[in-house]
Order: sequence, then C-alpha cells, then structure tokens
Amino acid sequence: LHAPQNDLPRLTADLLERLRTRAPRVHCITNAVAQAFTANMLLAVGAVPSMTVAPEEIAAFTASADALLVNLGTFDVERREAAEMAVEVATEEGHPWVLDPVFIDRSEKRAAFARVLAVCNPAVMRLNRTEFAALADTAADSDALKRYALDSLTVIGLTGEVDLITDGARLTTVENGHLLMGRVTAMGCAGSALVAAFLSVENDALVATAAALLALGVAGEMAAARSAGPGSFAVAILDAIHNLDPTTLIERARVR
Amino acid sequence: LHAPQNDLPRLTADLLERLRTRAPRVHCITNAVAQAFTANMLLAVGAVPSMTVAPEEIAAFTASADALLVNLGTFDVERREAAEMAVEVATEEGHPWVLDPVFIDRSEKRAAFARVLAVCNPAVMRLNRTEFAALADTAADSDALKRYALDSLTVIGLTGEVDLITDGARLTTVENGHLLMGRVTAMGCAGSALVAAFLSVENDALVATAAALLALGVAGEMAAARSAGPGSFAVAILDAIHNLDPTTLIERARVR
Amino acid sequence: LHAPQNDLPRLTADLLERLRTRAPRVHCITNAVAQAFTANMLLAVGAVPSMTVAPEEIAAFTASADALLVNLGTFDVERREAAEMAVEVATEEGHPWVLDPVFIDRSEKRAAFARVLAVCNPAVMRLNRTEFAALADTAADSDALKRYALDSLTVIGLTGEVDLITDGARLTTVENGHLLMGRVTAMGCAGSALVAAFLSVENDALVATAAALLALGVAGEMAAARSAGPGSFAVAILDAIHNLDPTTLIERARVR
Repeated sequence: LHAPQNDLPRLTADLLERLRTRAPRVHCITNAVAQAFTANMLLAVGAVPSMTVAPEEIAAFTASADALLVNLGTFDVERREAAEMAVEVATEEGHPWVLDPVFIDRSEKRAAFARVLAVCNPAVMRLNRTEFAALADTAADSDALKRYALDSLTVIGLTGEVDLITDGARLTTVENGHLLMGRVTAMGCAGSALVAAFLSVENDALVATAAALLALGVAGEMAAARSAGPGSFAVAILDAIHNLDPTTLIERARVR
Repeated sequence: LHAPQNDLPRLTADLLERLRTRAPRVHCITNAVAQAFTANMLLAVGAVPSMTVAPEEIAAFTASADALLVNLGTFDVERREAAEMAVEVATEEGHPWVLDPVFIDRSEKRAAFARVLAVCNPAVMRLNRTEFAALADTAADSDALKRYALDSLTVIGLTGEVDLITDGARLTTVENGHLLMGRVTAMGCAGSALVAAFLSVENDALVATAAALLALGVAGEMAAARSAGPGSFAVAILDAIHNLDPTTLIERARVR
Repeated sequence: LHAPQNDLPRLTADLLERLRTRAPRVHCITNAVAQAFTANMLLAVGAVPSMTVAPEEIAAFTASADALLVNLGTFDVERREAAEMAVEVATEEGHPWVLDPVFIDRSEKRAAFARVLAVCNPAVMRLNRTEFAALADTAADSDALKRYALDSLTVIGLTGEVDLITDGARLTTVENGHLLMGRVTAMGCAGSALVAAFLSVENDALVATAAALLALGVAGEMAAARSAGPGSFAVAILDAIHNLDPTTLIERARVR
C-alpha cells in the first residue's frame, strides 16, 4: 500500500490535465437545488454532466457515462428508483460511483436508504461529520472512519475544516479550503461530483477522492481572495477550478 | 400597539445579528426555479435551508426546522401534498410559516389552493400587487390590505416599488430597493424566505416582515452600485445581504 | 424570399428594443438544471418567463403566454404530458413554439419522443450537431438541414462554432460566440428560450432565430472579455444581453 500524500499535489495536477483532455461523462442523480451548480462545476473541471432521473432513461445515461453520482438531497420516489437502477447499471458496467448521503441526520427514512446503498459497493462515500454519525451510528473519529471504510470496502471522504480520506488502510488529510464554502448551497454536492469525475480518470479511489477535495479546497482559497461574499465566491470558485494550474496546487497544498 | 418604523433599521440590524449567531433552520417548499437562489439567500443571511418536498420526509424536516416557507411556484401534486403536511406540522409545533402565492393570477387552480392555505394561519403572506388582487378579489390599496390582514389574522407583505406591510392595525412602508430586483428570477421568492428566517428570531410578525424586506431592499441598493446588469446584480445582492452592517442599514433605510 | 443577412444586425437591434418594450411572456417546459438560468436569460432580455409543468396548470399558462419553449432535458412522465398539452394549446392559440431536443443522442426513448414533437409544427428546432444526427438519422450538413426544414415545415437553428439557420429555402450563418459558452450548463437551453422570446415579436421564424442566436453570440463575446472563467462568464453574459446596444451588434456581427 502506497501512501500518496507526498505526491498528491502533482498527481492532482496530472488528473486535472486528464479531465480536460478526456472530458469524461458523469451522470448525476442529485437534488434539484444542486443540479445547476453541480453541472457547472463538472463543466468547469472539463467533464460532461448529465442529470436525468427519469426511469426510462436512467439506464441508457448511466451506461454511456464514465462515472455516477448518487446524491440523496431532495429525495423522492422517482429519485430513489433512479438511484437503484443507476447503481445496478454502473455495477454491471464496472463504472465507479459515489454516494453523497445529504442531510440523512434530518430524516430517518433517508438514513435507512443510505444504509441500503452503502452496501452496494460505492467506490466512495463523501459526507460530513453529522451525516457520518447518522450513517454509522458512531462519532466520526479517524478510527471509526477507517473501520467503516474497511467493513464496507469503500473510501470515505469526510469533509469539514480538515478533510479526512481513508480506505481503511491509508488515511490522507487535506487542510485546504475556506469558510465561505459552507455559505454556498450545493458546495458539498459539487465536491462529490468532482470526486466522481476524478474517479473516471484514476483507479485508486483514495487518490481520486483526495485529489478532488484538494483541487476544490485550493480553488476555494483562490476564490476567497477574489470574492466580496458568498455570491461572488460561488462564481469565483468555478473560475478557479477551471484555471487551476500545477504551480498553484503544489504551492498551496496542505496535505498529510 | 407599537409603531415600529422609527426603530426598524436598528431592530433589523439586531435581527441580522441574531440570524448570524443562531443559524435557524428554514424549511422551504418552493419552486424548482427558485430553490438554489433561495438556499443561497438563506445561507448568506446566516440561516440553514432545507428544501425537500418528498412526502415521507417533509414532516421530519418541518418539525426540526424553526420556520417554514410555502411558495406556490411550479406547483404540482407532490408540492401540494407536501405543503399541506408541512403546514399541519408547523402549526402543531408552533413554528411560523410564510405563504408566497406566486403567479396565482395566471392559474385559477393555483389561486384556489392559495385561498385554502390562506386560512391555515400563515404568520405572513408575501406577494405582489397582481397576486393580492387575484387572492382577495380587490385592488391592493392600503385599506384592502388592512382588511384582508385583519380578516385572515395574518401579516401582509406586499412588495413593489414601495413595500407595504400590515397586520391590519399597523402599516409600515419600505421604500428601499432597486429596479434590477425585478430582473432576477426568484428575487421575490428569496424575499419570502428571508421573511421566514426573520420570523424564526422575532415574534412580532410585522416587525420580522418589515425587517426582512428592509434588509433585502438596502442590500439591493448596495448590489446595484456594484453591478453591470442583472447577472452581476444577482451575485452582488447575496454578498450585500451577507455583509450588511448596522451603519449602512440606518443610513439608507427609507421606512415610514 | 428575402435574404435577411445584410439587415440582420439592425433587425436584431430592433427586436431587442421590441422585447424590452413589450415584455412578452414565454412559457418554458424545460429541464430542472436549466430553469433558473433560462428564466434569468429571459428576464435579462426583457421577457417574462414562467416554468410550471403541472398538468392542471399548463393549459392556462401556455394560453396566456406569447410563445412556448419545449426542452427535453431531464425528461420525465410529467414533463412529457405537459409538453403534449402545451403544444396543443399553443397550436390552438396560434402561438409559436420552439423544440430543443437536448441529449437525444444519449437516449433512444427521448429521440423517439422528439420525432413525435417534430411533426407537431414547431416554429423552430434549436439543436446541436449530434442531436440533429440523432433526430434526422443523417449528418448535419447544410443540405440535410435544408431538406429536414423543408420536410418538417420548421426552421432549424443548428448551434456550434458556426450557427446555421435555415427554413429550407434560405440559409443564414452566425459566426459570433465564444468557447466558454460550452462550459456553462444550460447555455443552449437559454439560447432556445431566447429564440422563443424573439418569435413573440417577429413573425419570420428564420429572422427571429438568427437574431436570437446573433444576440447571444455577441453577448457571449462581450462577456468573455470581462470574465476570468466559466463562472464569471455565466454572470457576464446575462449582463451583456441586458445591455446589448445597436452599435455593438452592428460592429461585431459576423453573419452571412
């Protein structure tokens, strides 16, 4: 097992380059609030988003995509069915998929559904501290994260002031980011979509997740320096992820 | 009955401070067009938005929120059922709720549903002149607004070039704002969400409504001074509401 | 048959003026990702958007609108039924409507539905090269576009690096635009909405389509000059379409 943290900034720069060259397709089953910002984040990084949740189309879109995001925000019957069908197709096709269990601490039914999906082999689960606690029924310390990752054969990407990424064996932390990221709706959702995009160009899910969160964190810092508040920040972070260059990544990265 | 207009700018500054400190939860049943901008407006002012309309989740989300918004834009069966369940839960829990009867002048069925909700004790109804006329079947002059507010035991927040806020006994006017507010989709919807946020930190619904509309109007003026058109205006008003300070509020307020 | 290309910039300026004066209503059945940006584009150009897809309201909204957009993105049963009802009402009322068959190359079921709608007399179909190929089962060269337009009695607005607009007899090309237009979600969708808006103030569908695409292309160039990436570009293009003036249009237009 290789510890990627020393190489992570350089790897992230390489993956950004691959995304811009290959333009992978990412199909997103995501909440209505997040759809436009998520699509714009994917376009800014070089990927091609699609967003349908219609049951008669979801299989075709998922099969022709390179990666899948399942986000549980604004969940309803249609999205639940779409998620189940899409996960089945992604699994058959061998495409990686990401689970983002938004707000499961606010709804027991949503948490129960997240637990069902969590055992369907997502490559990565991206969530925050409260959501992890609701999912795993334990506080989100490093040991609990590692244990959960090992048990469920997934990579956990826990975002917060410091991001923790683990596959059970390795643990990477990313300290980049900015407080304004918490003041823009769908920032976490868009981060999960970035993880899906990076998974489509990098097989090591730990590396892909850490790289996506590092890129977003550094972009957030660049954006904050050009913003007057959360409105201009949401705009500037799209510009920043689009323009992110190796030098900036390597200079600013705070990873361990 | 106390006339709040002299104190309103100072009260508004205090309420903004409370919002930033307490971070109240506002659950929004709102139209698909408005969801992201509304969520960003709430985050900018310091509140925590949620947006699900799924019938199996709406009760849990509404019960754990501090205030509720019901907006009738892009209305469908799911949103109608969600609205009915959410209003019932909010009433049981004693949480204030705001009704925004968007575009009821364009659809008689929507107007009929608005009339059903209007007698379910919303703390506030935020609407424009045409929507009031469609709801109350009378022109939106001060006397009609007062009478309607008295009859329905609600506060009316009528927005336009001059905002009129009345509980039937008191009448406050807010003259702040900018024409570009009419050139951004969901600005009225986001204003209604702000009213819900202010209601979660202020029991006097007249004061909460006038304060929310004053804050939005002053933010609109600040934003217009930094904008080149409706695109940059929509961004700048989020920055402005996030940064709004007591001095600016007090200097710019035009309330009676 | 009159070739409009020499007059197009001047005509476009006149139509922009008409839009700002008349504020026509455009009802949009469009995908969830595109709704907010589309509404903001219409507001920026002076039109009044509405977006409901609820079956019990769609007839009233369509009947009281001046033009209709049917966009097949994020298609589901509700939107399909809404589209069928809206097209019927628009046809009865003699209102022009625009078909935007988003992503039909990714879903055979969606392509089949697009073919059904294509014979219901849309005034214009706005699509890209891949979508045209999926619809017409032939490569998108000028002859194929003309033949398709003649056969289906519609105007084809094919967007790409160069936009091709034809009614079967006349062919206009618009070379304005910017690469960043492809990095913002719903830019094509918003372009189709602009076509619908222009149709509400200009009976010649070829002229209306070419004028809308010219206005958007020039606005895109103005926006690119003020942008640092796709985030600020999406904001600046709304400002630019709002502020577009005859001199700029005439100086920058590259039409044949």
